[in-house]
Amino acid sequence: MLIAIPLFDRFTALDAVGPFQVLVQLPDATTIFVAERPRQVTDHTGALTLRADASLADVPRPDIIVVPGGPGQADHMGDSPLRDWLLAADQTSTWTTSVCTGSLNLADAGLLTGRRATTNWMAMDELARLGATPVRERYVFDGKYATAAGVSAGIDMALALTDRIGGAEMAQRFQLGIEYDPHPPYNAGSPATAPAEIVADLLARSRFAAA
Amino acid sequence: MLIAIPLFDRFTALDAVGPFQVLVQLPDATTIFVAERPRQVTDHTGALTLRADASLADVPRPDIIVVPGGPGQADHMGDSPLRDWLLAADQTSTWTTSVCTGSLNLADAGLLTGRRATTNWMAMDELARLGATPVRERYVFDGKYATAAGVSAGIDMALALTDRIGGAEMAQRFQLGIEYDPHPPYNAGSPATAPAEIVADLLARSRFAAA
Repeated sequence: MLIAIPLFDRFTALDAVGPFQVLVQLPDATTIFVAERPRQVTDHTGALTLRADASLADVPRPDIIVVPGGPGQADHMGDSPLRDWLLAADQTSTWTTSVCTGSLNLADAGLLTGRRATTNWMAMDELARLGATPVRERYVFDGKYATAAGVSAGIDMALALTDRIGGAEMAQRFQLGIEYDPHPPYNAGSPATAPAEIVADLLARSRFAAA
Repeated sequence: MLIAIPLFDRFTALDAVGPFQVLVQLPDATTIFVAERPRQVTDHTGALTLRADASLADVPRPDIIVVPGGPGQADHMGDSPLRDWLLAADQTSTWTTSVCTGSLNLADAGLLTGRRATTNWMAMDELARLGATPVRERYVFDGKYATAAGVSAGIDMALALTDRIGGAEMAQRFQLGIEYDPHPPYNAGSPATAPAEIVADLLARSRFAAA
């Protein structure tokens, strides 16, 4: 089982590392961070650098693709090596997945056309514009495509994917392995539950804000 | 506000990246991954490599210390550069924190003696042996010391720390920023809720299993 996680400049670290920490536990899994060429890739904060150990070309046929999001995803819309790789790798993948705005890249490649999918709560309109049917859920499965909501949602998506791959016992085992018994101090993790003024302010500052 | 996250070989990636993704949002925060010397540091799975951009000596007085756990923490118990750094940096830190078995290193340095603290659910006895008073909670504050339970618990701890530093509005804002609205497919993230046979099996395979 080969799992490929493409990185790009200004990706969001937890988008990639959340599902990584779950899926790396899959039996006989090999997990590889990839980029256009093997190199060190810095996240959107500028403070975290992850190493991509292989090039996209080195990993043409992963079983599972996990595309993280982050501001840098916008640089890979339209003609790009990442888009070309996604289109080709998706032809043989068992699962094609994304976290946060990574789903915009899947949609841009045409992979989510007419499919139910999700993304960062601020990017729902953009996802619709790209041809998908946006759904406000923590994660959405449509065929072999699994898309997660923003940033931390990749953890939940990866556990749900584990459930589909290996069953309930495996998913529960992996959940206990990362001690994922969430108790955030507030209930403010979605626009439906966060205070309205915080929702409005984040949206206004977002790159997806109406011009 | 200077935040230092020490890395070591065979750390657990989500232990470090979870709280990173929260605390990096603090106003005027500078977040630095540190190690004995600046280098690339590989996690306990062997599949993920994060870069430590500075040496421990380069960052002697961080405001916030976040010590991740992972199997590699055991290599830094007793006399070690990491222990020396923790002891010195703790003298001027505002907050000294840990995730998962990182609390064993704080305890080994004597920083948790007689204090309420937590750790990975499998390491509670070891934490007690090192002089702390183990508490089975998602995160525990005792004075300026904040310790989180296993792996993913660093996210919750970092949000609670944000609450103490910047108040409820800031904590809620950061929570929405990482869309932390957890919906795991099962309720199996703690030994209290996971099926008993999974708990027993993970414990038996653990490095903390009774000999």
